[in-house]
Amino acid sequence: MSTRERLIESTRTLLWERGYVATSPKNIQHLAEAGQGSMYHHFSGKEELARVAIDRTAEEMRASVDAVLSGPGSALERISAYLRREREVLKGCPIGRLTQDPDVMATPMLVAPVEETFTWLRSRLAAIVAEGVVAGELSAAIDPVITSAAIVATLQGGYVLARADDDPAAFQQAIEGILALLGALSVR
Amino acid sequence: MSTRERLIESTRTLLWERGYVATSPKNIQHLAEAGQGSMYHHFSGKEELARVAIDRTAEEMRASVDAVLSGPGSALERISAYLRREREVLKGCPIGRLTQDPDVMATPMLVAPVEETFTWLRSRLAAIVAEGVVAGELSAAIDPVITSAAIVATLQGGYVLARADDDPAAFQQAIEGILALLGALSVR
Repeated sequence: MSTRERLIESTRTLLWERGYVATSPKNIQHLAEAGQGSMYHHFSGKEELARVAIDRTAEEMRASVDAVLSGPGSALERISAYLRREREVLKGCPIGRLTQDPDVMATPMLVAPVEETFTWLRSRLAAIVAEGVVAGELSAAIDPVITSAAIVATLQGGYVLARADDDPAAFQQAIEGILALLGALSVR
Repeated sequence: MSTRERLIESTRTLLWERGYVATSPKNIQHLAEAGQGSMYHHFSGKEELARVAIDRTAEEMRASVDAVLSGPGSALERISAYLRREREVLKGCPIGRLTQDPDVMATPMLVAPVEETFTWLRSRLAAIVAEGVVAGELSAAIDPVITSAAIVATLQGGYVLARADDDPAAFQQAIEGILALLGALSVR
């Protein structure tokens, strides 16, 4: 791996494990086994490096989520497959976690890819819920926009509950809770 | 306010605004207008002070949540009142946020009150959902344990969406989304 790549991948790891505010340029250089001069040769600083790292994490997430949501099955089956796919629950969501970081929130360049990712995810899920309603699979009482917000929120909040408990079971309960509500409103 | 009080209240403010990892003893002393000697006279350090601050925040939250959940109205009305009550949405949940802080999670003494608060909240909500089912107000298809996990997760994740968007509307959409699902499963 090139030094540039090692710097990006080390930043992704540290952002996920420690967050932005708790990660220093020195931490990144140490994990990447790169010198300070080398880091500032490739990037203007921690901020630019974090943006490249977040962009890459967001792109990978979109691609993998889209693969599940574009897969086979009914609307509810695809939403279930997405919510139930394997995750490192106790590490939290590498994108969602950034919203709790004070220095990310104070840096528009870093908030932008986080906001874009959630906007994309919510509209992608809203379209699938709408498909399910149109197909007569889900009750017409379901509003796609607010329902997709609740689905994404349950996922993000599920991580919070699991971390509070130090147990992925809480995440799974939240996921199964929202799926059960949707399932009870499916038209069989 | 006594110096001890100012130290506790300043720590609460900083934990909510910046988190634990990003708050130094110096930050606390500065906001509290207290000297280093004074801080270490009252507390063994940042960790003990944070525990006292978190305990106080958790106690206040429990009392105010309990007041709403013990109020008048049907199960769904009380859950709605709780989810819709006024909040500083963009600041996030002062307890939930702590789960995203790496140094809180690495300190069992600080995780304990967070875990206890969520355990209490989930079981309190589960009892109300169960009441609603028993009273015939909510569909018997609703499982109280996983439903309450989904409700608390939606709330916590709603903060994540709102902060990503820098707009409380996303929080409200998530809340209305889960309430609409519960409402559609209420037996009128």
